[in-house]
Amino acid sequence: MKTRPLIVLLTDFGLKDGSVSAMKGVIKTICPEADIMDMSHDIPAFDVIVGGLILNMHYAYFPKGTIFVCVVDPGVGTERAPIAIKAKGYTFIGPNNGIFGQAIPFPEYKHIEKIAVIENEKYFLPNVSDTFHGRDIFAPVAAHIARGVPLKKLGREVRPKCFLTPLSLPIHTEHQGELSSIFGKIVYIDDFGNLVSSIDKATFQDVIGEQPFHIWIDGTKWTCGIKRTFADGAEDEVVALFGGDFGDLLTFAVKEKSAAERTGARVGSEVRISNYTRSELRKALSKHKKRPR
Amino acid sequence: MKTRPLIVLLTDFGLKDGSVSAMKGVIKTICPEADIMDMSHDIPAFDVIVGGLILNMHYAYFPKGTIFVCVVDPGVGTERAPIAIKAKGYTFIGPNNGIFGQAIPFPEYKHIEKIAVIENEKYFLPNVSDTFHGRDIFAPVAAHIARGVPLKKLGREVRPKCFLTPLSLPIHTEHQGELSSIFGKIVYIDDFGNLVSSIDKATFQDVIGEQPFHIWIDGTKWTCGIKRTFADGAEDEVVALFGGDFGDLLTFAVKEKSAAERTGARVGSEVRISNYTRSELRKALSKHKKRPR
Amino acid sequence: MKTRPLIVLLTDFGLKDGSVSAMKGVIKTICPEADIMDMSHDIPAFDVIVGGLILNMHYAYFPKGTIFVCVVDPGVGTERAPIAIKAKGYTFIGPNNGIFGQAIPFPEYKHIEKIAVIENEKYFLPNVSDTFHGRDIFAPVAAHIARGVPLKKLGREVRPKCFLTPLSLPIHTEHQGELSSIFGKIVYIDDFGNLVSSIDKATFQDVIGEQPFHIWIDGTKWTCGIKRTFADGAEDEVVALFGGDFGDLLTFAVKEKSAAERTGARVGSEVRISNYTRSELRKALSKHKKRPR
Repeated sequence: MKTRPLIVLLTDFGLKDGSVSAMKGVIKTICPEADIMDMSHDIPAFDVIVGGLILNMHYAYFPKGTIFVCVVDPGVGTERAPIAIKAKGYTFIGPNNGIFGQAIPFPEYKHIEKIAVIENEKYFLPNVSDTFHGRDIFAPVAAHIARGVPLKKLGREVRPKCFLTPLSLPIHTEHQGELSSIFGKIVYIDDFGNLVSSIDKATFQDVIGEQPFHIWIDGTKWTCGIKRTFADGAEDEVVALFGGDFGDLLTFAVKEKSAAERTGARVGSEVRISNYTRSELRKALSKHKKRPR
Repeated sequence: MKTRPLIVLLTDFGLKDGSVSAMKGVIKTICPEADIMDMSHDIPAFDVIVGGLILNMHYAYFPKGTIFVCVVDPGVGTERAPIAIKAKGYTFIGPNNGIFGQAIPFPEYKHIEKIAVIENEKYFLPNVSDTFHGRDIFAPVAAHIARGVPLKKLGREVRPKCFLTPLSLPIHTEHQGELSSIFGKIVYIDDFGNLVSSIDKATFQDVIGEQPFHIWIDGTKWTCGIKRTFADGAEDEVVALFGGDFGDLLTFAVKEKSAAERTGARVGSEVRISNYTRSELRKALSKHKKRPR
Repeated sequence: MKTRPLIVLLTDFGLKDGSVSAMKGVIKTICPEADIMDMSHDIPAFDVIVGGLILNMHYAYFPKGTIFVCVVDPGVGTERAPIAIKAKGYTFIGPNNGIFGQAIPFPEYKHIEKIAVIENEKYFLPNVSDTFHGRDIFAPVAAHIARGVPLKKLGREVRPKCFLTPLSLPIHTEHQGELSSIFGKIVYIDDFGNLVSSIDKATFQDVIGEQPFHIWIDGTKWTCGIKRTFADGAEDEVVALFGGDFGDLLTFAVKEKSAAERTGARVGSEVRISNYTRSELRKALSKHKKRPR
């Protein structure tokens, strides 16, 4: 059995109004043998950061050759360029607004085989609307690529370094004497109420490493260590972990409950992580010694 | 590669309880080679108007030969007839309650190749429930059609003109001297909070045309002109446009925000559009003249 | 045209964060010819009972040979065993936590052809996370089964009777003299606001049968008879019926409205059904006699 080309859609359109289905209809009209799948259509409206994170978390689980059509596009109908990227064995199609910057961050630009601005109207629908490029430009272009049209036919090739808009997560670090801190934000809350922060494992290991630490969410201190699984916490305990759906990003969870409800955090809430100062450490250790008495 | 038959589902069942999947299971049992897609399953419960609008907005983007199964069916288990329509190269299956009346409105009945009442129980599931005709009648009939069963085998052929229930949108116009008005309603609010009204472009051009106009939503006047894209408005400005997902219908939007929140409108809110009277026009023009001073 | 293997997914992951798509990507990487469908991903978080009910309501509508991957898994990362079951012509894959106990209840264990504990890491993703076995274990195992790997290669075979965790619905019956009662709970509320109880038809017929009866929901008496269709009730009347999407379970509905809103019931609300006592019956009959005067 010959493998059918696989096209995966990621948008903030929701599934209510059927517009995602119009994209699929367009694809099937041009490339009837395409298999079409949904990554998510519930990206918060216009939230390029969450769109970019979700793409990054999942794309590598798809077979090589998969075409990703990613339309979270606050600037539809304005000047941002539609692009197509061949990288890491995949093709990514969407607006050049940073949505691909997490899946293909700057240090990995060497993995970009080719990147083209989508300009050739021959591969668009005949009448391009001002409001729905997902259907009128991105879907038909994806279908033509699935049928074998090479990127160079879509439009002029551009240099990634000069052209590709990066996705920058809200995170920064501070060092003051013996105190090291990471400042980030809650960027996403999943259906279970787990809180996904913008703080990545590499930065955490770099700044905090094996030191004991405090975590503040919106100014409230939560004394949670890094756990291995969602189920590792005690009843009602807020646990922090790397390795949930958002592999690399620090996520807060409460066993079989909602960490969002427990902490009151929302998307945008401030997260701070700091190591113990030496005096705190001394206090903590002396407490710890006293307990056995 | 041979093309597989394509069946598209549109319902108000939601995706939560798995009943849509039962329809798909039935289709795959009868016609394993079918490709099945979802248009929407989040049509507001029993809202035939929204179902009909959404079908109309999207069906033409699917390849010819597509079979649409549309089950928004307040009368399930009662006397309304299940029908199958061949028109414009597509097949439409569902209850005869008006849901097809926007995709195939009266003036286009000449495009109807055939229309049949679905009666032949040979093509139903063996035990038809009283509550779930989507699974027990419409899904298996669609699968049999996908396998090549012609409409005439489903039941008696009927004449569209006498039989097909039309979908009538809530819209009417009034002319009083120099004042022309269109009265409509908000019929749908999309995930972005955009307000879709029942006022279509043809009526607007007929009644208002190039004249300046006022718009009232639930009695509140909004001074918004017709824009070309969602992004064309100023910060927080309510803009009106034709050409969103609901191509033909006047839609209200606020750039990167929710027009529903901004205006407080709900589904069912009254929309009125009137041209300026001559005196209003004079006042507006004199204001306009004064401004440069 | 050769039939492609069909894999159906049932989870409580939601569709927002794209994790379901990662499962599909894994499946398509291992078994590119698989057709993948969704039963539901909106099972209430960790609610094995609702997951088990929904699976039971729909699985038999799928063609024989379908592989069901069911991941409602409060114990992910802990000791519960992942299992694969061949029964009734289908394959069921998921955690051994009761989710299969409604589709394959104890009296039907004779229909179980084979049941294996999933242990062979050869069929897992290379790096199994602690939090997402749906993607790392269940999806790849399903894809390998779709490609023809027999259950015995997955791990040791076990005896259903000793091993399979049953799903037990909250229902019990009481008999006090002439008064017979069934006590259950609302276990599910669908998108239409219909209330699905844990009371099954067999128990109802056994305990109440043809006797007149009262129904209490959370202590409030509702005088509703068993109806045949959702449309059979009067305006605003709460009707009870067997034969909705949840075939066997007593469901409460209000014609074209929400029974949940009408009754104020929630998931977990108590449902009691009792036959009339003889004195109530006498009173009811005498009332009935008086009316014609």
